[in-house]
Amino acid sequence: MEAGTASDLRTGPRWEFDAASAVEPTGPGRWRVGIADGWDIGGKPNGGYLLAVVVRALVAGTARPDPLAVTAHYLAPAAPGPATVDVTVVRLGRRHTTATASLRQAGGEVARVLATLADLSASRGAPARTWGGGPPPLPPPERCPRLLPAPPSPLPPPLADRVELRVPAEQLGFAVGAPSGEAVVSGWARFPDGRPPDAVSLPLFADAFPPAVFEGGLPLGWMPTVELSVQVRKRPAPGWLRGVFRTRFLTGEHLEEDGELYDSVGDLVALSRQLALAPRPAEG
Amino acid sequence: MEAGTASDLRTGPRWEFDAASAVEPTGPGRWRVGIADGWDIGGKPNGGYLLAVVVRALVAGTARPDPLAVTAHYLAPAAPGPATVDVTVVRLGRRHTTATASLRQAGGEVARVLATLADLSASRGAPARTWGGGPPPLPPPERCPRLLPAPPSPLPPPLADRVELRVPAEQLGFAVGAPSGEAVVSGWARFPDGRPPDAVSLPLFADAFPPAVFEGGLPLGWMPTVELSVQVRKRPAPGWLRGVFRTRFLTGEHLEEDGELYDSVGDLVALSRQLALAPRPAEG
Repeated sequence: MEAGTASDLRTGPRWEFDAASAVEPTGPGRWRVGIADGWDIGGKPNGGYLLAVVVRALVAGTARPDPLAVTAHYLAPAAPGPATVDVTVVRLGRRHTTATASLRQAGGEVARVLATLADLSASRGAPARTWGGGPPPLPPPERCPRLLPAPPSPLPPPLADRVELRVPAEQLGFAVGAPSGEAVVSGWARFPDGRPPDAVSLPLFADAFPPAVFEGGLPLGWMPTVELSVQVRKRPAPGWLRGVFRTRFLTGEHLEEDGELYDSVGDLVALSRQLALAPRPAEG
Repeated sequence: MEAGTASDLRTGPRWEFDAASAVEPTGPGRWRVGIADGWDIGGKPNGGYLLAVVVRALVAGTARPDPLAVTAHYLAPAAPGPATVDVTVVRLGRRHTTATASLRQAGGEVARVLATLADLSASRGAPARTWGGGPPPLPPPERCPRLLPAPPSPLPPPLADRVELRVPAEQLGFAVGAPSGEAVVSGWARFPDGRPPDAVSLPLFADAFPPAVFEGGLPLGWMPTVELSVQVRKRPAPGWLRGVFRTRFLTGEHLEEDGELYDSVGDLVALSRQLALAPRPAEG
């Protein structure tokens, strides 16, 4: 793949994701952003994309490059168009900066975010170690079908044009009315224009795969995210990401989806967890 | 066990936990609280206990009884003594209220919390369903040793007097220098004075067990919590809780601990995840 260097990434919107997540300072702690067209699911900009935009403002506002632990609570659907992010530093520490951010559009506040940022290049301590973790087993990407939007069908969503997802056919049974019954989805992910993944883009990848509960047998439908949390553990190496997403508990109308993202050298780069409402045929 | 009724719980500090988490309004959106002695680990009030105190103020400030999704970022160690909680409602919705809270002591802000509260008694939708989840297999509580403080040893901590924990002996190898190598700890938990568990107390139970990485073979030491997130899914039935806590990834100095809490009828009542710094012999 064509890998951009760090300085490429700093020169501005050469890549599609950078254009769609650019932040421009407009005052102390305030950033103007543009929610771009096409990063949506069913017409609603993807929650992970919105969080990535907010994270970019948090990085700019705190001068700490890596979103170590970020949580977004979603308040109202966003829409493509102008928006602002207000960043307030809560605590500036030796190792971490904790800050809050509000994403606002004309209609009101869209998301509130609480985050602790760090510089993972300065991370010390014990070497990486896992107890039972590791990348999901996957056929090579070229042997996994790419999810591509097929209007007027709502699935795959337009977002699949912006994030290249390749999922083994046996985990796409839900798409032909034959879900496996296991609420797990795994696959490959990258930007189709060759932009390398980085820490800021990981919240997007953490929310881009098809919901695991579709494969678990729940009816297809809109699943509003109440809350999305992402821990970024390492800046990803260039190349494909591998992701695995799993739901274990549906209680009443609530379910979680837990995700792991690994980079091309097999290291864990992010953990995610979201709380969502069970899928509904039409928005309630 | 002696089970309190809901009205008992509302009448005030009959139980130890209620006395230690009482909140008193002192102005619009402001609550006076007392961080109690003895709910600590190594002299530092437990992060789950602090979150439970904040949740009590959030419930009082939003009139929604259940902390559906709460995240605390810890800013500085707390100390026993007076504190205040400031609650700000971000969005009052039909189903959910999102709010922030700040826990402050004389020395400054101790924790910032972002939360979405709900009324789980009104939860509709699909019945409970699991894909591979369920309570951990455990011998009956009377066949599991109770963790009890044994000063001057720092372990078990004073908190173990306030939360009764019973862990199978084979998961306490770390205590005798022979950890199993599996970073998993499970066991039984309840209030020793017979107070039934409720939604507000679940953040405490989610942070009360010994760290799973001790059993995974990491050296014993102080593990500062950076961030603790809890999803409360159901109000627990009276009786023992069962918990299982697991760490899978240590990357640099960071590790997660994921927890599940089940009530006495075997239903999931809470999921937790924390980001902590790897244990260190002395605080850095």
